[in-house]
Amino acid sequence: MESSLSQLSSLSPGELRALCRDGQFTGPTAGLARGYVQANLILLPQEYAFDFLLFCQRNPKPCPLVEVLEPGCFEPACAPGADLRSDLPGYRIYHKGCLPEESTDVRKICDASMTGFLLGCSFSFEHALMEAGIPLRHVEQGRNVAMYTTTIPCQPAGRLHGNMVVSMRPVDAAQAALAVEVSARFPKVHGAPVHIGAPERIGVTDLAQPDFGEAVDVLPGELPLFWACGVTPQQVLQASGIPFFISHAPGKMFITDMCNV
Amino acid sequence: MESSLSQLSSLSPGELRALCRDGQFTGPTAGLARGYVQANLILLPQEYAFDFLLFCQRNPKPCPLVEVLEPGCFEPACAPGADLRSDLPGYRIYHKGCLPEESTDVRKICDASMTGFLLGCSFSFEHALMEAGIPLRHVEQGRNVAMYTTTIPCQPAGRLHGNMVVSMRPVDAAQAALAVEVSARFPKVHGAPVHIGAPERIGVTDLAQPDFGEAVDVLPGELPLFWACGVTPQQVLQASGIPFFISHAPGKMFITDMCNV
Repeated sequence: MESSLSQLSSLSPGELRALCRDGQFTGPTAGLARGYVQANLILLPQEYAFDFLLFCQRNPKPCPLVEVLEPGCFEPACAPGADLRSDLPGYRIYHKGCLPEESTDVRKICDASMTGFLLGCSFSFEHALMEAGIPLRHVEQGRNVAMYTTTIPCQPAGRLHGNMVVSMRPVDAAQAALAVEVSARFPKVHGAPVHIGAPERIGVTDLAQPDFGEAVDVLPGELPLFWACGVTPQQVLQASGIPFFISHAPGKMFITDMCNV
Repeated sequence: MESSLSQLSSLSPGELRALCRDGQFTGPTAGLARGYVQANLILLPQEYAFDFLLFCQRNPKPCPLVEVLEPGCFEPACAPGADLRSDLPGYRIYHKGCLPEESTDVRKICDASMTGFLLGCSFSFEHALMEAGIPLRHVEQGRNVAMYTTTIPCQPAGRLHGNMVVSMRPVDAAQAALAVEVSARFPKVHGAPVHIGAPERIGVTDLAQPDFGEAVDVLPGELPLFWACGVTPQQVLQASGIPFFISHAPGKMFITDMCNV
């Protein structure tokens, strides 16, 4: 596995997508194709595409648009030759009232009305934070970032409404302002934090019990910094009763040909 | 007229919108409600709303979104109590194959499918350019800015396609970089120029013959600076054969309650 990961690390975005397409790679994409933008995926029926695009336009922090495709088009401009229905390591399929199913290929269930949205993911700004000398505990500990549902309402759009999901990273108080400054430079990947300290003010009652991902300790002298999280759209689509949509599986992103800047 | 204009200048956005609604003001809005954002308007049937929102998302320089409303909703968040169908001094109504008609009220022709888009207009960055000490000839001469169709293709979106329209402002060569720097700070109102000098490179063969607005001289030592222009969406919707849409009449913008920043 260790050698396999090191082999994977040297592959280009296109090579990794081809492995996904052939079912040979189904793992998480963190740390792969370094230097390239990775994106969250939402595929939903055309009937809901305007509402969702409007939702993203009104809520750019949790839903930063990387690319939106025409209904029935699955080859994004940011990755020529790719197919959004097969080139991710894993998908989640949501039917209203059911637990989401996992799959590695959704070609058979995507008709010509399905509309693809690629949204910025936090890997880009995490890289920038580490470059700026801000350690990230969940990376050091090899865990998923801790994520929490909040009481912060998103701006509703058409039939879509719901609260924001945030990710939390503990930052030394002396570096908190720098962390804001650095992440604010990346408006296409969630931008600056939405909240600092005082988790109870956004409805987070116990940092040790995240709603998604894994808890990490907040040490003395550190502040919890909360960023808008890309899990928000899945939660909002479910909360709004959308009958059918597809997302990437957690941690299994779409790897684009675009370079991080 | 002079005293009327000076009386108008002291009115708030809400007072000006009320005069429009009552048919008492039907003139251009340049110079009115100083300090407040003015916006271009597009109203179109829901059937085309996703394509147009996608077009704006892909072409933010000519189509910088200020606000998008739900179909059938005409009271924008940026101006509570306003009605987009009556609170502009003038409208243009476009039916495919016909010359546009002018009107001062479109309430009767807007059904519940009509979807409103407010787009940034250049007044905000023109104010910032003048504050930075860059004189604007068309303002000094009391003319409309010169606008030109170009050969620069916009990114198509669904059924929408067409070339960019640009506005031209001559700037002293010594101030050209400053003009770029200042306008780049306003991505919500067209941002930095799309082209500097060499008009023939973007298909503009004669600066003295603008396609819209009025020509101004480019003096020795000056460069023509070209910015993406808010006339682009009207041109694109017409070029794409959209059967019916409404825009603001030239120079007759929607005055919001938002302050310029």
